Amino acid sequence: MTQLEIQGHAAKTAARALATAGTTQKNAALAAISASLRANTDKILAANAKDMNAARAGDMRESLLDRLELTAERIEGIAVGVDEIIALPDPIGHVENYSTRPNGLQIGRRRVPLGVIAFIYEARPNVTVDAAALCLKSGNAVILRGGKEAFNSNLVFVELMREAVASAGLSADVISLVMDTTRNSVNEILNLTGIVDLLIPRGGAGLINHVCENAKVPVVQTGVGNCHVYVEKTADLKMAADIIFNAKCSRPSVCNAAETLLVDREIAAEFLPMAKALLDAKNTELRCCDESHKILTGAKTATEEDWATEFGDYILAVKCVGGLDEALEHIAKYTTGHSEAIVTESYTASQRFLDEVDAAAVYVNASTRFTDGGVFGLGAEIGISTQKMHARGPMGLEQLTSGKYIILGSGQVR
Amino acid sequence: MTQLEIQGHAAKTAARALATAGTTQKNAALAAISASLRANTDKILAANAKDMNAARAGDMRESLLDRLELTAERIEGIAVGVDEIIALPDPIGHVENYSTRPNGLQIGRRRVPLGVIAFIYEARPNVTVDAAALCLKSGNAVILRGGKEAFNSNLVFVELMREAVASAGLSADVISLVMDTTRNSVNEILNLTGIVDLLIPRGGAGLINHVCENAKVPVVQTGVGNCHVYVEKTADLKMAADIIFNAKCSRPSVCNAAETLLVDREIAAEFLPMAKALLDAKNTELRCCDESHKILTGAKTATEEDWATEFGDYILAVKCVGGLDEALEHIAKYTTGHSEAIVTESYTASQRFLDEVDAAAVYVNASTRFTDGGVFGLGAEIGISTQKMHARGPMGLEQLTSGKYIILGSGQVR
Repeated sequence: MTQLEIQGHAAKTAARALATAGTTQKNAALAAISASLRANTDKILAANAKDMNAARAGDMRESLLDRLELTAERIEGIAVGVDEIIALPDPIGHVENYSTRPNGLQIGRRRVPLGVIAFIYEARPNVTVDAAALCLKSGNAVILRGGKEAFNSNLVFVELMREAVASAGLSADVISLVMDTTRNSVNEILNLTGIVDLLIPRGGAGLINHVCENAKVPVVQTGVGNCHVYVEKTADLKMAADIIFNAKCSRPSVCNAAETLLVDREIAAEFLPMAKALLDAKNTELRCCDESHKILTGAKTATEEDWATEFGDYILAVKCVGGLDEALEHIAKYTTGHSEAIVTESYTASQRFLDEVDAAAVYVNASTRFTDGGVFGLGAEIGISTQKMHARGPMGLEQLTSGKYIILGSGQVR
Repeated sequence: MTQLEIQGHAAKTAARALATAGTTQKNAALAAISASLRANTDKILAANAKDMNAARAGDMRESLLDRLELTAERIEGIAVGVDEIIALPDPIGHVENYSTRPNGLQIGRRRVPLGVIAFIYEARPNVTVDAAALCLKSGNAVILRGGKEAFNSNLVFVELMREAVASAGLSADVISLVMDTTRNSVNEILNLTGIVDLLIPRGGAGLINHVCENAKVPVVQTGVGNCHVYVEKTADLKMAADIIFNAKCSRPSVCNAAETLLVDREIAAEFLPMAKALLDAKNTELRCCDESHKILTGAKTATEEDWATEFGDYILAVKCVGGLDEALEHIAKYTTGHSEAIVTESYTASQRFLDEVDAAAVYVNASTRFTDGGVFGLGAEIGISTQKMHARGPMGLEQLTSGKYIILGSGQVR
């Protein structure tokens, strides 16, 4: 067996015991984790400093350095996140539709953990703790494969968490870190059938596509968002301008940010300058179709590729459409199925948009930026699924579970 | 584009319209299907006769010939199955957890179809109608890839269904048959990403493993059942004998039939002859471990391979175990995660078995043969999932759906 297979079997064994651990014990382990993070802040900062020094020496971009860096305040924030997970209800053990069938069998579906969850992610060490805490609460063992840039930070986090979990009487192997940070370990995880019950990739489109195309283990596809805001001709234009500004500029790097503005031809001449006035505050680069370019004459022109691009930056594609049907066609062609919004005062247009757009989250008169586990009332989230199977939209604790039917009889045969 | 890609795009377009069709219209299409099957019984029988003649000429086994054959009575049974699907509640459009968040956003999760479902199945023409009717009711387009042995029967079924669906004002392309019955079309379906939202294989372990290992589209794994009955030392032995006889012999070819009997050492000498007396009525071949072989001296001895085999026949592997822990270990090692049963009068043993066995259905004091959508209260089923993601156990209409969040605002930004 390879190192990773040994680690996987240890996780599988640990997962079997964790599956029947009570909420009290799991919460005690989580409390030990948050206490340990707080008590060992200096040790975590020292490990992170090594990662930061190596990253600076390697000329990492400033925005990535910022994601990698830990501070005492950020570590406190991570510990608070663990405390919040303690406060969430435990989904495990809940029995749905428990009833007695005509033949006297009592049948219900009990919520159970998935088993072993693998995470592949990039240079954000906070994900190491968030993911481990959500898996622990939902009764799953986790195998963490973080990026090499954050290896020292991840290692100290995992060591502290393993100690904490063991101190609460659970197997330390419910949390483990993949020591090989090359592409080899990613490819090995993709093939760990019979061990990994769910693989969640978090990162850029390149990583996610590689994982989805090559995995033999079950995967949930997350977080690629080419989101649209469509301003229909009856829209309140002031509201529409506020929404597109918020959807584009409040945090352009995240997956629920808007990438394309669609606007009805009839109102484009009035609306586009209003929107531009707000977007200019962040020097947002506009990439316009021929028609909108005649209105926003100073802007760039859009290429075909722009309609399909998640810019992740202060860049917005702009297109005039002839009405709802054309907007729906454009969205159907280019959406990644994440979040889509219409701004309208038309009842019929709002209902058709809700009915016909095929995405995890469909909005009327609100910013796409609300697609989030906390906002949706799920508590913490482990990612946002853009696939239709198993989980769609923000994934909370419940999306890390499966069901099993329990059947209690008194000798029934068929 | 290949023929199958053209067919896939037509299904995708048809699925978009079907997704917003009302229950009344979908039920009208289903009623037209069942009426057409009844009105065209002779035409269906003539097509089936061609398949039967070719199969007999090709020396098909008697049990497979029986699966392939249609009679007027069987066609009536298929039509009744469609009528029963009409009577099931439509899951589409139901909104879960619809509530108003603190910021005034109204958020709920609406149940929606998956889109395009592909079925790959073998020589049972009734599956053609069952699968199409369940997909239609749940708002999904379906691409049917049946076995070559049933091609003429499948073709007439699909032609009649397409006419019926069109007569109800829906696109005929919501139901289509793959005309190529070679392995090539299976492999092409596995790669129809962006078109097929869910692929369900139904058939032998060979087909299912091939599909699961090679599919790039989402798959639900169904119907491989290596099921165990464990007779614990406190069991009511008469009840236990009735249960193992029923689980093995009531229909040995199906996936919820038992394949291995585990029996506590302490009661083996008393129990095994009782069980054998019943199993002998069907000339059941017993394959025994060394210890049980000393009790059932005339039986065969089991090989390692027997513990992992779904016999699908009147064959039962028999093993003595030292108690619950050894039984749980054996099941964890060999289960396919379908259905597992314990027979016991011990409260603690029953609870531990329910807690610790990882399978779609876990039974106390009842036959594994009850794992079935109808018995579990789901209505008709499209298969029994043995995976943990998305659907586990019998798959009814709800398991053919996804959710999408709908969010109604009044200008909220974040």
